[in-house]
Order: sequence, then structure tokens, then C-alpha cells
Amino acid sequence: MVGIVAKLSECIALRDANIHSVDVFVPENKRAFYSRSEFVYDPALWPRDVMENDFKNIGKLFKAERSVVRVPNLDPKYKIAILASNQDHCLVDVLHGWQDGRLPVDINCVISNHNRSPNTHIIRFLERHGIPYHFLPTTSGNKREEEILNLVYDTDFLVLARYMQILSASFLEGYGKNIINIHHGLLPSFKGSNPAKQAYNTGVKLIGATTHFVTPELDAGPIIEQMVERVSHRDTLESFVQKSINLEKQCLRKAITSYCELRVLLHEGNKTVVF
Amino acid sequence: MVGIVAKLSECIALRDANIHSVDVFVPENKRAFYSRSEFVYDPALWPRDVMENDFKNIGKLFKAERSVVRVPNLDPKYKIAILASNQDHCLVDVLHGWQDGRLPVDINCVISNHNRSPNTHIIRFLERHGIPYHFLPTTSGNKREEEILNLVYDTDFLVLARYMQILSASFLEGYGKNIINIHHGLLPSFKGSNPAKQAYNTGVKLIGATTHFVTPELDAGPIIEQMVERVSHRDTLESFVQKSINLEKQCLRKAITSYCELRVLLHEGNKTVVF
Amino acid sequence: MVGIVAKLSECIALRDANIHSVDVFVPENKRAFYSRSEFVYDPALWPRDVMENDFKNIGKLFKAERSVVRVPNLDPKYKIAILASNQDHCLVDVLHGWQDGRLPVDINCVISNHNRSPNTHIIRFLERHGIPYHFLPTTSGNKREEEILNLVYDTDFLVLARYMQILSASFLEGYGKNIINIHHGLLPSFKGSNPAKQAYNTGVKLIGATTHFVTPELDAGPIIEQMVERVSHRDTLESFVQKSINLEKQCLRKAITSYCELRVLLHEGNKTVVF
Amino acid sequence: MVGIVAKLSECIALRDANIHSVDVFVPENKRAFYSRSEFVYDPALWPRDVMENDFKNIGKLFKAERSVVRVPNLDPKYKIAILASNQDHCLVDVLHGWQDGRLPVDINCVISNHNRSPNTHIIRFLERHGIPYHFLPTTSGNKREEEILNLVYDTDFLVLARYMQILSASFLEGYGKNIINIHHGLLPSFKGSNPAKQAYNTGVKLIGATTHFVTPELDAGPIIEQMVERVSHRDTLESFVQKSINLEKQCLRKAITSYCELRVLLHEGNKTVVF
Repeated sequence: MVGIVAKLSECIALRDANIHSVDVFVPENKRAFYSRSEFVYDPALWPRDVMENDFKNIGKLFKAERSVVRVPNLDPKYKIAILASNQDHCLVDVLHGWQDGRLPVDINCVISNHNRSPNTHIIRFLERHGIPYHFLPTTSGNKREEEILNLVYDTDFLVLARYMQILSASFLEGYGKNIINIHHGLLPSFKGSNPAKQAYNTGVKLIGATTHFVTPELDAGPIIEQMVERVSHRDTLESFVQKSINLEKQCLRKAITSYCELRVLLHEGNKTVVF
Repeated sequence: MVGIVAKLSECIALRDANIHSVDVFVPENKRAFYSRSEFVYDPALWPRDVMENDFKNIGKLFKAERSVVRVPNLDPKYKIAILASNQDHCLVDVLHGWQDGRLPVDINCVISNHNRSPNTHIIRFLERHGIPYHFLPTTSGNKREEEILNLVYDTDFLVLARYMQILSASFLEGYGKNIINIHHGLLPSFKGSNPAKQAYNTGVKLIGATTHFVTPELDAGPIIEQMVERVSHRDTLESFVQKSINLEKQCLRKAITSYCELRVLLHEGNKTVVF
Repeated sequence: MVGIVAKLSECIALRDANIHSVDVFVPENKRAFYSRSEFVYDPALWPRDVMENDFKNIGKLFKAERSVVRVPNLDPKYKIAILASNQDHCLVDVLHGWQDGRLPVDINCVISNHNRSPNTHIIRFLERHGIPYHFLPTTSGNKREEEILNLVYDTDFLVLARYMQILSASFLEGYGKNIINIHHGLLPSFKGSNPAKQAYNTGVKLIGATTHFVTPELDAGPIIEQMVERVSHRDTLESFVQKSINLEKQCLRKAITSYCELRVLLHEGNKTVVF
Repeated sequence: MVGIVAKLSECIALRDANIHSVDVFVPENKRAFYSRSEFVYDPALWPRDVMENDFKNIGKLFKAERSVVRVPNLDPKYKIAILASNQDHCLVDVLHGWQDGRLPVDINCVISNHNRSPNTHIIRFLERHGIPYHFLPTTSGNKREEEILNLVYDTDFLVLARYMQILSASFLEGYGKNIINIHHGLLPSFKGSNPAKQAYNTGVKLIGATTHFVTPELDAGPIIEQMVERVSHRDTLESFVQKSINLEKQCLRKAITSYCELRVLLHEGNKTVVF
């Protein structure tokens, strides 16, 4: 790995650009290297396609597995689709984040498998903003995965905003891009359904939420972010759920933002580097 | 439960004592009641044995399972024994807490099953302060439980300060009093051995520690306190362990203090009320 | 104070009601007593006016300064008016809280002294929900306090949701009820205008927000709630402001909720008890 | 600043060293640049004096104000002197940190202006470890600054572990190196004496501690670290002080560690960059 930072920063300097931050992470005893740089540059001096090519060449030089460049106000925003079920608090929070400009994404569509959710208020909001909404009720025999795949074909990543269906391995393979899920428990505890109830019955003193990438194994994908809040004997199952809801919203928003800013990198198969 | 608080506070008022705090917890839909009061009183007007009797009578009236009274500067401190293994940081921290007067306990003895720990410095400390130290190495065939039981006979509760042996159900029954354990993970995740390594391999973003009462089922007793700290991809297994060590010390000290102040009550078999 | 808890709990028990929580606070060396109880009762057995009277009588017995009773699903919600200026994030957050039923208040009206705020979206929201909106631009010579006083006459308390005008002592006297303000700094540091800029220039590592009761002295009223967030050299003045905004919303919502649940009591003139 | 990171990393790569982390901070709209790198290298290939020279030359090239290099297991530890007064908890904590190897410093001497502190236990500890202890009682007329200056002449920086004397501008000039102070309040609130009492009287809901560099203006030097803890109406002045003590110890230890790892840089006169 000797010289990667040097090459990257030389490349940036040669284009008269100013580095504002560099994150480097070299795991111990591993032949791996992760880096993220932010710099300010003059688009007139460094055309977008030349920049892409410059970094691709450095990537080749060091046999990099992956190299991504994004120019915030020039590149199109990431396109996402949001999948939700009967609980819509995470969906609503992502929509708010999108509306107030805090989540730098375009929303291709919203898909729900539940007819009670999102509510009329949300459906009207989607209509007003021209975001397609698809109601695809699932049954144990038909997960509607083909249809979903067709609807989300043109997205950059998917957000499971409390989507209560397990996506099959073939769906994951067919989509082939990242899927971010919010789990309402502090993985790896409380996998599976109703983690708040599991936590409540266990008598824990802290509850949490976890955002992670989806993998074929349920609730076991690489963790992106985790948050906790204190609970006590006074908390009821209802207040566990309420506190969980607050954590889920914050945790999901943070993960999406980090992902869009290229801060989240896969590492050792089941871990993440989050710069 | 109608009238318990009334009876308790009437009893205190009749002795001209001033209530400084009352904690009451009534679980929903359960026939249970937990309460803790602090009050300031004049020992001349309310002899210790009369007080004991007064509360015992109220307990009988409401068929209370348990009623405990403690008068801090009058009653003897709780007597404990500390069991440790090769890692002595929790042992040392409890000794510090005892020395600076923050932990209101008397230490009957320290037992270790490991010859490398505690170190000479600690053993001399114990000698200087007249605290008996017993080295009871365990083998897979001999857990020395009979001997331990004899040594801790006269204690009020036991503290497992990273004691790396599972105490048998017959030991628990034989001792018959509370045993507080510090688990270096965020139960119920990472039960069993080497939780820091488990957490590290899982790629979590938060690690934790848990104090709980010991029950025959490993790492499944009622949780008293939990604490967390943030970790990132930059943390190594060593720094996971180091952060865990800090959490363990704080978490154990807090649990012991709460226990001695009668703040910790068992609830629904596997939960605690911590006032 | 001997016997107050006894009397209160006896009163509740005599009506066959079940106490669910009791908070008592007796300051050291002071002749003062603060208490808050929650209980479940049968309205058929304890008519609302009798309950009011029962507690009033106990209050008289102990010469209590103040005694308040609220029955959540029976008593009308507290009526508030919200005053805002050019920044509407706190106003919007209170409206959200009201809409989703989390803030147990009725909103009599919204008053702004700034024509750019709230935006059209908000004004339509107010119209849809039948909440009167008043635009009362202030000048250095005319604070419109008479008009405000007339508009808020029938409220239980006022919320200053980043209202950037100092209310005069005569307004406070004329209104005569509590006014809750959110200050975007960690009082008592950074009083006055632009606390985020003051904090930024000082190079602090933590920024905060404070909710407090309004008194004639600027930013010096009894503190109800404070929250902090970590900042670093990477934070700009803009990100200070953004982090501050998030804190303000949480801090204001928490204070309003606590106030409505009768958790906030004045104490020693310039302090609060928050149960 | 174009090219600094490139030059630094090229220099490191040319010596076959591996960069493990790079921190860069470029303030907006300022002609300033701060950076910190960690790398692993082979001392046989890069002699210590050549390394020093290499970085000095890059510094010259970019007209750097300051450039510091440290090789942990090769360079001598920083030498410090600790000044304390009647409260010795911070002194004791720094000594513990030194003893268990967590604080990478050598302690040249301990100076106290108070005869009740440190206690005999500490003085014996110092004797056992060969750390000179000087008792220099101050009067309003004689701050003993000349003597202190002579004693601390050969240190790299000073630690004021709750030293309750204001060091004069001429002392600061005479010493000419950094002095780290722990202030038991959340600066800029509660400057001056007895900040816990000030905080208590103000009725704050959060108390804090601050480590900062000492400047001639009292309690106004660049802030290195701040920590907070929640307080409530139940806290007494004594518990304010106790919580403050805990914060002070943590906050001071963290600041010393960061300083020794070259993480703390002065910035814009009254601020710090803490990588």
C-alpha cells in the first residue's frame, strides 16, 4: 500500500485542487486500504470525465477493487426506492428529510405491501410531489419480488423503511446493489420479529436500533450505525416501542446520509468502515 | 395494593420522621407493588428494633414477600466476598471504591482461582488492610465450590469481579443469597466466553457491559445495569477489550452501590426494578 | 412537613384508587416540599370536583402554596399560543408534535412578527386545521404587546418558539401565567443574541440548548431542560447552527411535555424541580 | 496549500513507510492548514534524524509555523510537572494514569501550595517512585513563581491539576511552553472560583468540566476538551462537586493523552484543532 495516499494527493494537487479532508484506514495485518478524500476544485480546470479517469487510473495502479467519485452539485443525486409495511414512521421521516433537502437523494418510488400504510396524508404528499406509489400486497406464496425488481431497476440503492418481508437471495442477486435496512433492535441481539418485545421481556436497561446492509442471512448484514437509549422498569412495551421508533428514524437517516456521502465502505465481508 | 403508600407514610409520620423520597412502582396488569422510601428520623424517638418491627407489620398486613430496612450510619455495612480470575481490573476497582469509602461494604475475603492474579501489589494491599486472600485454583474436575461456600458463608452477597468459572446450581442453592456478576458484553448478545472478540468479529458500532444477578442459566440472570460506548472500524480487538474494561468497572461499581442502597429489587422473575 | 405523603396517599387510598408513582422532593435545610403522584381511579367513585376539593383541603391543611390536579382524558388540554419570528423550525416541530398527538395541548393561535416566516406551507397547514395565525410585525417603538396580550388572553401558557423579541415586564405581569422559552445556547453562557456565533468564536467543544421560564431579566429564568451535542474544529458556524436547531427542537418539546404532565415546579425562585 | 498532503505522503512513501491515518483540516476562507499522520516504518531504513530533517524540509517548503515528529517507542516521553492545591483528586488520577502506563509521560516533580494535600499516602507513593515533591506555600504577596519556574525548567509542558493560583503573565512568558489546566465548570460559563457553587445556584440541568491551555486571561485559554453530566433538583452542592470531580479526572486525562499524541493544535489564537 506504500504510496497510495501520496499518489492520490499528488493527483489532486496537480489539478490545483485543495484537499479539505483525508480519511485513511489500514487494518492491522491485512492487505487492505480504505480512503476517502474531500477537496475543492475548479471544474474549468478539471473536467468531470477527466477526474473520473484520473482516479480510475490510480485505482488500476494499485489494483483497487472499487473507486467512486462524486461531485455534490454536479453529479445527479442517488436514486432510491423506499419499501415500507404497516408502520410508516421511518418512511415519513425519510420523506421529511428529502423534502427539507437534508437527505441528498431522489426518490424513484415508494412501495408498500400493506394497505393501511402509508396513510392518505402520505399518499397525497407523494402525489403532490410526483413520487409514484405502488401497493404490492404480499402473501406467503407471492412476495411480489419480480414486480418490485422491475420498479426499482433504475435506483442506486434501496431503503427498507421497516419493510417486514424478508427479501430472497435471488432478489438480492437480481438487484445487485446495496440495500439498507433499519432493524429495531441492537443487533446481534433480538434478531427476527418483534425485537422490542424480546428486549422488553429480557429486562434490558438499554434498547437500540441498527442500520445494516441486507444480506441473504436475516439481520446479519454489515452494520452501518447503531444507537441506544436508556429504559427502566417504568417503561412499558409501548414506551419501548416508542423509544425504538425515535432511534430507528435517527439511525436510518444517519446511515442514508453517510452512504450518500461515500462514507460507508464494506470491510472484511461482514463489517463496515464508516468515515 | 390500595393503601400501601398511605400506610407506609403514615407509619413514618407517626414517628415524626420526614420522608425525603418515595419511589413506587406498580407494574401494569400485575398484582405487584415495589416501593422504596428514604426518610430522616430521630433515633431517640424510633429505636432501631421498633422501626424494624413497624415495617414488618405493614409488610404482613399487605402480605409483602420481602421488606428490608437499613439505617446507613447505624446498621453494619453489607459484608461481601469478591471472586476473581486472571483479570483483576474489576477487583482492583472494587478495592479502590472500598478504600475511598464510596462503596459501603465490608470485604470479608478475596478469592482467586488464578495464580497470576491478583498481582503482588494487590496481595500486599489486602495484607495491609487485613483482608484475607484465598488462592483456590480450579480444575475441570474440581471447582472448589465447597471451600468457597465455607469462606463466603458469612457474607450478605457475592461479587464476581470477572470470575471466569460457572457456579453450579448447587452452589447457588447452597449460598442462597444474591450474587452479582459483571458480564463484559451487552447481554443478551455475546453470552459466554470472550464477548469482546464476538463483538469485534460482528462489527458492532457500540460495545457494552452488563451487571446481572447470577442464576443457574449462564449469563441470563436479571439485568441490573448496562452501559455502552461507541466503537468504530479503527478499534482493534485490543481497544475493544480496553473500552470494555472501562465499562465493566463503572457498571459493576454502580450495581454494587445501588444494591447496597436497596435500590435493586427482583421483578417478574427475570427482571429488576432499579429505583 | 411530617405527614404530607401520608395524608396524600391516605386520601387516594380512601377513594379506592391505586397509586402508580409518587415523587417527593424535600430540599435540605429548607421548609419546602414538592410532590407529584400518579394514580388510577374510578371516576364513578371519585367525581372530578370532589377530587379537586379533596386535594385542595390537604393543601390548606399544610398551607401549600399551590396544588394542581389533572385527569388526562377528562380535563381539557392546556391551551397555548406560539410566538415565532423569522426562524420557524421550533414552531414547525411543535405543530408536528401537536398533529401526531404527542404534545397534549390545544393551540389557540400562532403569532409571528416576521413576514417571511412561517412559510406558505405552514400558513396553509394552520388554515387546514383552523388554527388562527396573526402577523404582528414589531418595530423598536411598538412591540405589539397589547395586541398579543388580547390574543393570548385565554391560554394556559405561552411558548416562545424562537421569538426574537424581549417581552416587557409589564407584558409578563399582564399575562400572569408561565411562558416557556427556548434559548439556543447553554445558559448561563451565551446569553443574548446569536449564541451559536458566540459559541463558535469561543471554540467550545460542546454546544447546547436551554428551555426556561421567562422572567423580566433576559435569559435568566428558571431552567427546565438542557441538552448538549459535541462539536469539533470541523464544525462551521453553519453546522453549529444546524446542530443547535436539532437540540432546540428536542429541548422545547421535552419541556412542553413535562410541563403539561405537571412535572415542572418552581423552586427557590430561580430553579425548577422536574419530576 | 495545494500539494502539502501530496508532499507529506510522498515523503513517507519514498521511505517505504505505510501511512495508517491522515488527518487534515483546512479552515474555510483561511490561509491555514493542519495535518497529522501516523505511519509504520522501518527504523533501519529511516534514521530518526533523517526523518526529522525530511519533515523539517517539507515544513520549510510550505512555510509551516510548526512541525513536530514523535516516534513513540524511540523518543523520550514528554516530561511534565504537576501543580496541585488542597484538592488532590486530579493529581491522584494523573499519578494512576502514569503508573498503569496509560499516560505516556515522565513526571519530573509534583508541586503543591497546600500543606494538607497531597496526603501522606500520596507523598509516600511519590517517594517510592522517586518523584520529587515540593511544598511551596503561596501567600497573596508571594506566589513562589521564581522557584516554580526553576523546578519546572526542564519539562515539556505543565499540568495544573486543580492548582488554585493564577499564574502571572510573566510566569507564562518565562516558562514559554504549554500549560494545561482543568477547570471545574463548562467554560465560558462559571469562570473564576467555585464554579460548582455557581452552577448549583443557577439551577442548571447539566454540569461540566473543561480542559484548556492557560493564557494570561483567567479561564479564557483555548479549550481542548469538555465533558458534561446531567444533574437534577435532587443534586446537592456536594453531589454537584462529586460529579464535577469525576468529570475533571476524565477530562484532564483525555486532554493530556491527546496532547502527548500530538492531536492538539492551536488554531486562530483562541481555538484548538483536536484530531
